[in-house]
Amino acid sequence: MRIGVLTGGGDCPGLNAVIRGVVRKGVQDYGYDFIGFRDGWRGPLEADTVQLDIPAVRGILPRGGTILGSSRTNPLKAENGIRRIKENLSKLEVDALITIGGEDTLGVAARLADEYGIACVGVPKTIDNDLSATDYTFGFDTAVNIATEAIDRLHTTAESHMRVLVVEVMGRHAGWIALHSGLAGGANAILIPEQRFDLAQVCSWVESRFKIRYAPIVVIAEGAMPKDGDMVLKDGSQDSFGHVRLSGVGEWLAKQIEDRTGQEARTTVLGHVQRGGTPSAFDRWLATRFGLHAIEAVRDGDFGKMVALQGTDIVRVPIADATAKLKTVDPKLYAEADVFFG
Amino acid sequence: MRIGVLTGGGDCPGLNAVIRGVVRKGVQDYGYDFIGFRDGWRGPLEADTVQLDIPAVRGILPRGGTILGSSRTNPLKAENGIRRIKENLSKLEVDALITIGGEDTLGVAARLADEYGIACVGVPKTIDNDLSATDYTFGFDTAVNIATEAIDRLHTTAESHMRVLVVEVMGRHAGWIALHSGLAGGANAILIPEQRFDLAQVCSWVESRFKIRYAPIVVIAEGAMPKDGDMVLKDGSQDSFGHVRLSGVGEWLAKQIEDRTGQEARTTVLGHVQRGGTPSAFDRWLATRFGLHAIEAVRDGDFGKMVALQGTDIVRVPIADATAKLKTVDPKLYAEADVFFG
Amino acid sequence: MRIGVLTGGGDCPGLNAVIRGVVRKGVQDYGYDFIGFRDGWRGPLEADTVQLDIPAVRGILPRGGTILGSSRTNPLKAENGIRRIKENLSKLEVDALITIGGEDTLGVAARLADEYGIACVGVPKTIDNDLSATDYTFGFDTAVNIATEAIDRLHTTAESHMRVLVVEVMGRHAGWIALHSGLAGGANAILIPEQRFDLAQVCSWVESRFKIRYAPIVVIAEGAMPKDGDMVLKDGSQDSFGHVRLSGVGEWLAKQIEDRTGQEARTTVLGHVQRGGTPSAFDRWLATRFGLHAIEAVRDGDFGKMVALQGTDIVRVPIADATAKLKTVDPKLYAEADVFFG
Amino acid sequence: MRIGVLTGGGDCPGLNAVIRGVVRKGVQDYGYDFIGFRDGWRGPLEADTVQLDIPAVRGILPRGGTILGSSRTNPLKAENGIRRIKENLSKLEVDALITIGGEDTLGVAARLADEYGIACVGVPKTIDNDLSATDYTFGFDTAVNIATEAIDRLHTTAESHMRVLVVEVMGRHAGWIALHSGLAGGANAILIPEQRFDLAQVCSWVESRFKIRYAPIVVIAEGAMPKDGDMVLKDGSQDSFGHVRLSGVGEWLAKQIEDRTGQEARTTVLGHVQRGGTPSAFDRWLATRFGLHAIEAVRDGDFGKMVALQGTDIVRVPIADATAKLKTVDPKLYAEADVFFG
Repeated sequence: MRIGVLTGGGDCPGLNAVIRGVVRKGVQDYGYDFIGFRDGWRGPLEADTVQLDIPAVRGILPRGGTILGSSRTNPLKAENGIRRIKENLSKLEVDALITIGGEDTLGVAARLADEYGIACVGVPKTIDNDLSATDYTFGFDTAVNIATEAIDRLHTTAESHMRVLVVEVMGRHAGWIALHSGLAGGANAILIPEQRFDLAQVCSWVESRFKIRYAPIVVIAEGAMPKDGDMVLKDGSQDSFGHVRLSGVGEWLAKQIEDRTGQEARTTVLGHVQRGGTPSAFDRWLATRFGLHAIEAVRDGDFGKMVALQGTDIVRVPIADATAKLKTVDPKLYAEADVFFG
Repeated sequence: MRIGVLTGGGDCPGLNAVIRGVVRKGVQDYGYDFIGFRDGWRGPLEADTVQLDIPAVRGILPRGGTILGSSRTNPLKAENGIRRIKENLSKLEVDALITIGGEDTLGVAARLADEYGIACVGVPKTIDNDLSATDYTFGFDTAVNIATEAIDRLHTTAESHMRVLVVEVMGRHAGWIALHSGLAGGANAILIPEQRFDLAQVCSWVESRFKIRYAPIVVIAEGAMPKDGDMVLKDGSQDSFGHVRLSGVGEWLAKQIEDRTGQEARTTVLGHVQRGGTPSAFDRWLATRFGLHAIEAVRDGDFGKMVALQGTDIVRVPIADATAKLKTVDPKLYAEADVFFG
Repeated sequence: MRIGVLTGGGDCPGLNAVIRGVVRKGVQDYGYDFIGFRDGWRGPLEADTVQLDIPAVRGILPRGGTILGSSRTNPLKAENGIRRIKENLSKLEVDALITIGGEDTLGVAARLADEYGIACVGVPKTIDNDLSATDYTFGFDTAVNIATEAIDRLHTTAESHMRVLVVEVMGRHAGWIALHSGLAGGANAILIPEQRFDLAQVCSWVESRFKIRYAPIVVIAEGAMPKDGDMVLKDGSQDSFGHVRLSGVGEWLAKQIEDRTGQEARTTVLGHVQRGGTPSAFDRWLATRFGLHAIEAVRDGDFGKMVALQGTDIVRVPIADATAKLKTVDPKLYAEADVFFG
Repeated sequence: MRIGVLTGGGDCPGLNAVIRGVVRKGVQDYGYDFIGFRDGWRGPLEADTVQLDIPAVRGILPRGGTILGSSRTNPLKAENGIRRIKENLSKLEVDALITIGGEDTLGVAARLADEYGIACVGVPKTIDNDLSATDYTFGFDTAVNIATEAIDRLHTTAESHMRVLVVEVMGRHAGWIALHSGLAGGANAILIPEQRFDLAQVCSWVESRFKIRYAPIVVIAEGAMPKDGDMVLKDGSQDSFGHVRLSGVGEWLAKQIEDRTGQEARTTVLGHVQRGGTPSAFDRWLATRFGLHAIEAVRDGDFGKMVALQGTDIVRVPIADATAKLKTVDPKLYAEADVFFG
């Protein structure tokens, strides 16, 4: 049996651990052959492959990124995309495809499996932890650790200078990284995309913190939005080149806090640092187990499924279950944190 | 309402995060008073208390250890232990007791609650992760991260010198730390207390690793035992003072590997380093939530219960459920790892 | 003898280690008394003091920031600044002042010592490492370690996505952090304030890196400037609020690289994270020794002097020597690095 | 010109950084060819070589260990060792040899250069920092950081349990790691090989620490010795197998402290963890510069020399200068630390 493997979407610590788990178990326990596809769906689309055997996965467990490369190529949007993939898989004698990716990558896998009968097994990957049907995805724990360590560092600067520090973390649609790192880092306010924030409330938290001679740290997800501030934000997030990358919501918020409280405020945007580097032990463990269980699914011919973590068990769920709906922060969970605000 | 708090047993990263969560929520949301008891059960036994209010818990979130101190004092074995505790609690007007500890500490709490009507709520703590009824305990993730980082470091030395490195990690009765850090660190053999190991098998793994010009790393839990080697181990584990501390099973194993394979072998015993220092983000998150939910249990008058993690939820279970039976590594889980051995 | 201690300017990992060294040695070996002044020169100016004895310095060695607080208050610009300081020192019976700070803080100390006969001993502090007369200042090694770790993390993302990553590090006037972290992190270009960079050259380095299927990382000091690009930079560095904070040179550079090479580019601005958190071992060692030697200078009555590191020795130099001229990166040293560019 | 490179002796973080610096500069700036010799002097002795070019050194900068392997093979003790090396170098058309190693490896290089006219340039390597003629060697800073982090972790355990913790660090003949990490970690006693320790004094430090309700941490170099306790130590350091590895001086000391003070004491032996893993930024910087300057020495035909750090400059010294005499801790430097003892 020959199995193709690809990694799609943004990179995520633990991708290599999945690949290693897949190959080690597939080769050693079942004698499978493997083919690596380069750069996500671009690989099968263009028959761009790379050797994938035991020596190829040696030493990659602690390394971030993906030895297969990644991209956001969507074969459903490519001309004759599906047909070309089917032809290439057939030409390369690939019997099954393990697709490691997030909502988009898995969405394609689901359609290939359901509509075109391609034997796909999915492995969920999202650093934002916003995929349904799994308690956690790998990469998230690493990102939270990095963000928490950064918040720890900012505390000392905040206090020495009595200055507001705003930390913008990843999370376009879900506030998991903000919530976990904010709680773990002892933030004085945590702002998430799931709940629009009230600027006056944030400023009042900031001010109450200063009253006890401590400087406040505000953690904000990149996708968080103020209650009535859309227009302002929209303006604010454009720099003079007309692109929106830098003057993100963190920078906008710091400016607002300065204007309203008169306290100096600074922003740190953690950016790509959160998704790089060696995975945490938890992420290596989870990713490795995902890899091992993905091979079991292939062996069982259980296609169209995705491996998932539930409690401490790895289970299989329909890929479509994971991609149907974003897993956002439960309001009750968010409410737990507010005892630490202010 | 006045609530006593104590921490018992070995220290564990996250204890301070629990205490902070308890006090912040208790004071701010419910207006409770707190009294800290020093050094586990010794505190209520000898009415040794320490002030526990909002300023006392400021800045302790990232700090390892416990601001309350800890001990292994067992009030059930102290003369008139129960009576003295009841008198002291009454004298100090303590209405409820939050006890943060492992099997022993919680066992006492369970009996105080069940047999003597003392209002106790438990918070599970064991760095070894061997308490039942909860998916994880705080401190475990930190220990696994530390052990994994050490294994990462040892890999480079192992390979540069073509030398066997044996890493002895914590785990007297359960192999959780060994299993998780061994998998995360890419160990070539993982030996746990739950399953006696076959020395010949271990040596064969070691040798097969050398054949591909890589040096092997063997992770062994301090409580792991060889199949037929009890007597040998017993001799080996005594040094010339007659105490068994140092020449633990790791050292014994390295000696055996040297004798049988002719390969140089070295041991690293991580020891107390695994339980100290700042908690990982996961442990801070878990410990903080345990603290918040313990206060909810007190407010609900739900005594004799322990907070526990199930999936991503914090639930309450009878304390006795957690202490009834050690949570050991499931043989199926251990079997998953063996694809990486050798 | 009573000694005042103050910390001025930006915070820096190691400040607390200096304070601890000063107090431990002063009290234990010479029986001196200490007074802490709050927030740099604001302390003696307003007689705002804090207790400074052995218990006050317990446990502060590994902590970032400064227990004394800091500010950029300049007493030379305050009304009757010098007179008020002299009066306050006299009222508080302070015999000598240990001032820990950078160019500005030490500049004031030098004048107080030289022109007004106030007994000052200086301890050099600058995270940018740009003070003359000392090989290194504490805080610098920590900042370089943090920046290097971030670059390590970005490598994996860069390679997985074949994207240019620009890292902006501290260094307004001197490129020490950029040079050291860039070399240590394996950057493909390092841009420093001491030498205007040629945009075409940078783009050519970027492109040559892509040719070997590796993604480039460009490290740029916040004070680095393009050769002919001043006007462009000036425009680019303003966002639509008209403030220049965010769209720093890193962001500007990423935009230029995108425009000229057609490669996607992203910026990470490390910001305050570089100056917070626990000091590295080297910085704790250096800061502690600075503290011990500052007390020796006081005991010797050797005022107007600053402690400094030369090789592995701590020596004393006139404060004015350190503040006379910025220590910038030697062109020869910078030239050493260029074998790694491209 | 063809240049051979070898790494000898114990491994050390930074070896790969030297190799990369050597090859990058040699190939790019001067067009040299390189041959890697495997496992120290065994390589030229047995003509065991490995390809060493730009692709071979890609990505190795942050990796510990050495891609060339290492050994303690001494060609002076091998039959016809020198003759075989000369023949092999000649057969392989090697014009010069860059030898990266410690006292032993460099000692051989010095003799090859001086007595047999082999063109050698040395790069100093010792994790213990005990080579003369250079302020620091790479690997030392990493080891000190690891030991300091371990001490930081042990502090919390020490305090929570009021227990003496003894930390045994590397340093057979010189106490540099003990001194630096002990100072940086805030140890309550630091014991080094250069000065025999007085057990009664150590116990008195331990006891005075307990009086202020803090638990003591004692850092001891593996080569430290008690004043009058040689015989005791000799007995104590043998386990029942008759080998001395484990019951090292740290374990012996903990036992003595327990016996004399009645306080519980535990030992942590950091061992190989100190020499593995990714190098610190300082070590990468130093090692890289050593590599660059070694190539300059080759180009200048300046053989028999070793690169060395003096202040912030890389200089060249006769190899013999470095190996003539061990660089031990200056008593005055050690005396600086004693204000923190007890």
